[in-house]
Amino acid sequence: MAKLSPDEIVQLFLAVAALLAMGRALGELVRKLGQPSVLGEMLAGIVLGPTVLGALAPDAMHYLFPATGSVPIALDALTTVAISLFLLVAGMEVDLSTMFRQGRVAIGVGVGSTLLPFALGFVVFYFGAANGQPDHSSNLIFALFMATALSISALPVIAKTLLDLGMYRSDIGMLIVAVAIFNDLVGWIIFALVLSMMGGGHGHRFEVGETALLTLGFAAVMLTLGRWLINAVLPWLQAHLSWPGGVLGFALTITLAGAAFTEWIGVHAIFGAFLVGVALGDSQHLRERTRTTIDQFVSFVFAPLFFASIGLRVNFVAYFDWVLVAVVFLLACAGKIIGSGVAARLFGMPLRQSWAVGFGLNARGAMEIILGLLALQAGLIDNRMFVALVVMALGTSMLAGPVMQRLLQRKKSRRFTALVGAGSFIPELRASDRFKAILELVPVSGAKGVDLAKAADAVIERERLIPTGLGNGIALPHARIKGLASPQIAMGISKQGIDFDSPDGEPAHIICVILTPEDDQNTALELYRDILTTFKDKAFREKTLQVKSYTELLALLASVTAHHPGEATIAPPAPGR
Amino acid sequence: MAKLSPDEIVQLFLAVAALLAMGRALGELVRKLGQPSVLGEMLAGIVLGPTVLGALAPDAMHYLFPATGSVPIALDALTTVAISLFLLVAGMEVDLSTMFRQGRVAIGVGVGSTLLPFALGFVVFYFGAANGQPDHSSNLIFALFMATALSISALPVIAKTLLDLGMYRSDIGMLIVAVAIFNDLVGWIIFALVLSMMGGGHGHRFEVGETALLTLGFAAVMLTLGRWLINAVLPWLQAHLSWPGGVLGFALTITLAGAAFTEWIGVHAIFGAFLVGVALGDSQHLRERTRTTIDQFVSFVFAPLFFASIGLRVNFVAYFDWVLVAVVFLLACAGKIIGSGVAARLFGMPLRQSWAVGFGLNARGAMEIILGLLALQAGLIDNRMFVALVVMALGTSMLAGPVMQRLLQRKKSRRFTALVGAGSFIPELRASDRFKAILELVPVSGAKGVDLAKAADAVIERERLIPTGLGNGIALPHARIKGLASPQIAMGISKQGIDFDSPDGEPAHIICVILTPEDDQNTALELYRDILTTFKDKAFREKTLQVKSYTELLALLASVTAHHPGEATIAPPAPGR
Repeated sequence: MAKLSPDEIVQLFLAVAALLAMGRALGELVRKLGQPSVLGEMLAGIVLGPTVLGALAPDAMHYLFPATGSVPIALDALTTVAISLFLLVAGMEVDLSTMFRQGRVAIGVGVGSTLLPFALGFVVFYFGAANGQPDHSSNLIFALFMATALSISALPVIAKTLLDLGMYRSDIGMLIVAVAIFNDLVGWIIFALVLSMMGGGHGHRFEVGETALLTLGFAAVMLTLGRWLINAVLPWLQAHLSWPGGVLGFALTITLAGAAFTEWIGVHAIFGAFLVGVALGDSQHLRERTRTTIDQFVSFVFAPLFFASIGLRVNFVAYFDWVLVAVVFLLACAGKIIGSGVAARLFGMPLRQSWAVGFGLNARGAMEIILGLLALQAGLIDNRMFVALVVMALGTSMLAGPVMQRLLQRKKSRRFTALVGAGSFIPELRASDRFKAILELVPVSGAKGVDLAKAADAVIERERLIPTGLGNGIALPHARIKGLASPQIAMGISKQGIDFDSPDGEPAHIICVILTPEDDQNTALELYRDILTTFKDKAFREKTLQVKSYTELLALLASVTAHHPGEATIAPPAPGR
Repeated sequence: MAKLSPDEIVQLFLAVAALLAMGRALGELVRKLGQPSVLGEMLAGIVLGPTVLGALAPDAMHYLFPATGSVPIALDALTTVAISLFLLVAGMEVDLSTMFRQGRVAIGVGVGSTLLPFALGFVVFYFGAANGQPDHSSNLIFALFMATALSISALPVIAKTLLDLGMYRSDIGMLIVAVAIFNDLVGWIIFALVLSMMGGGHGHRFEVGETALLTLGFAAVMLTLGRWLINAVLPWLQAHLSWPGGVLGFALTITLAGAAFTEWIGVHAIFGAFLVGVALGDSQHLRERTRTTIDQFVSFVFAPLFFASIGLRVNFVAYFDWVLVAVVFLLACAGKIIGSGVAARLFGMPLRQSWAVGFGLNARGAMEIILGLLALQAGLIDNRMFVALVVMALGTSMLAGPVMQRLLQRKKSRRFTALVGAGSFIPELRASDRFKAILELVPVSGAKGVDLAKAADAVIERERLIPTGLGNGIALPHARIKGLASPQIAMGISKQGIDFDSPDGEPAHIICVILTPEDDQNTALELYRDILTTFKDKAFREKTLQVKSYTELLALLASVTAHHPGEATIAPPAPGR
């Protein structure tokens, strides 16, 4: 049996390790800047690929990512599996019941937000510029693809943005999500049809019409019978097979089988994986825990690998065409924002909210990039158009959050963790009573431009009036301070506990002194709520007492905030792409 | 860039889907028979490979698993990644502190259990039969390899067996685990040295002595400096990167890098992955949750894929050599059981326990199979010897549990779930008081050869004397019944709750009638404990009340027993291999 030589194994492992490490590093970097991590992951490929490493050290690039032989085959196999699993997860997030619950309005806005960009895209690229189209391809199919590419949305980016703004469960949030689900589903089915119209590409197994029929038929079956069957068989699997192995094995098997089927009929494998994901994710019997295991492995291992590998394929500098980038970007924004906004307005939404819906749905994220890549591989578009689509996808995603925030006048809910720094955390308080604890904490709070002694007096005075022991071992001494520019927190841990006169009679172990500007009426309350929510779990409070340094505190907090980011009741979707 | 054609993608996906599905199905089957799941997973490959499918339908086999072209390369890449990740997990289970805690005795028994089989193997295969040795290879290296192969143990199988017997945390259990860890670590290092002695195989990059030095050096560095570095960097990663993505990405990157390094110096990649796993798993900062995510994905997806792929490589019928199988099996058992048993006896253990240690360590499991495969690929052994090693690995693993159980006179702790069948579960009790509930439940208990009316009377009479409401909404009516052959349980859920006079005054929602034979004094107590442990979590009890059928009950129970199998405080190791 043909197999990899030892040297090829070394190359393959180094290549995958480099993609994962660079993808993670840059993904984290852009995340700190508030941008979707897919941006960083793609940048990793751009850095390691022909655009940067290939220009600086071509030998190193060709060693890591040779163009011929077994290594690129192996890498292609890994990334093809990776992207199929990514689409499985994307499909699992398509919650059909959410869409149906929003009903008429969701479908209405969905149609508007699909139709206008589709029409605009079709007209411009059919009658207008054939720029970005490879010479040999059909004008109709090219225009249809561009129309589709402009009309899709990226559910995960949108969900992440809404979560960040604390709006995921609001009326407008649920509507936007429902419309995005509609867009996703319709967009992928249309794209599959466009692919099927190319025929010929897959060895003429089926005629164009046959492939289209099979595509629609498969989608229809998966969304009805398939959905029902999966829902019926899941409880049996969970009852009789080992857990979670039975469900995991089943999920991956049907994903690969579905992917193989759509690839076989002449559409791409990922379409089958996506539909299996929709059917699987819709089952009420699929456990949150199973969902999370698949989601984490795919989002943090397979997806970065795939998106980084995209950067390897194309030189993003050489194929950057300003005019094309501008045209695609403007068309995409105009069509989607106006189409969605006007439809939302027609369905009776207030003006600002309608525009917010438009900008939200305008995010294209990872989906557009995948669509573009498949089109590139199928010879539907050329490298310049691919680069333009990627730029458009990233640009619209980066725009969505800030604009929605401004339109809806929401701000990101304030997290106390953002205010506790290495200097303002004391892992072992020496103080034995509450006033000494305040005197120990206020000086490290980092408050600038104010007299710290006076600030401490203010906190102590208020503490005398209203003791701030809140029970569960938490105390939150607080004062509004004249001249303070921004809120400050100093946090301390007391192993032996300090009496803060709490209603449950227990001593306080976790003490946060909160200083806020004199005219700021809300921040302190927000921070109170956030701190109490963060430490509401007893086991978690006990772990907090074991913390020995600021780094350990952050590590602990990171693990819990991953579970309830802002809104405690929601299982968050995958990191926004 | 060279890539897979659409038809090759179809083939690859179908092949992987077939291996996963068949591996899961047969893995579950043998698990029901109480055997390690690796047996089923290998059988899957044997069924799909040349041994069965190749004999029955050669065309189907060659379509799924072609011998030439890109598909076998792709499959080889996937299984090579899979086995490296499996060794990462195996390494993570090597808990150095457990080994050191057991100290002198562990090392002593470890040396005994390594030395005798090693010496026996070396003498027999150096001076005796060169059977199973390829013609061209060196006699010394062959004998060294066979000696190593006979002297390793399989930590995961052993841990699983001890867990099943409820002995994992007992003194003898911890000793066996510590010795197995010693065996694992020493065995892999010796094997790596044997591989390094072959030199030449990897393009003569290093001399034999250099490779051996690099191997030992890498092991030494990973177990000291590497371990320390990983432990130091983990809190930082968890604090500053997204969770659990940061740790997952880091773990996989260093695994692949370590694997690439050992492959590069001329030893196999998995050796590096194993050592990285040891260093990583030893860190106190690695969270249980991260461990579980890696573990589940690897144990249930990658490992079955790898083990099933082994069956594809060799025809297990054609290369089955009775004499060789018998010799290898007997040598392995004699060396390991006597070596370990005598050493344990010398360190003052009672006789029966010493033999139990011997039979426990005799299990070779998945580790032996991997060792054998690498030796086969390196040309160290031929197909017949590989088959003999696989049979020995599976045979010794299957033997370990039953023999230890008999020697230590332990029985598997009785689970109440094993006694509740589809017919003896009532998802919605109609009864409104406790006596009616008993009358409703006893007839479905499945008790045979007894008068059910009398049995119900006995339970009611006892209930009058000692009410069985135990608080937390649980009631366990019980009686010992004359003429009953084996314990029986009937379980019912009452949505509105039934007063069972419990100490906390709450009505009972989960009611299990327990019937035991008249002379059986212990089973009822065991079942009491098991039921109370199972339902001790409030959220879980609430979920139980929502159950609508027996299948849903089983599914729910399966998810919780996966968390605490018998001994509630232990995180169980990967499913025994």
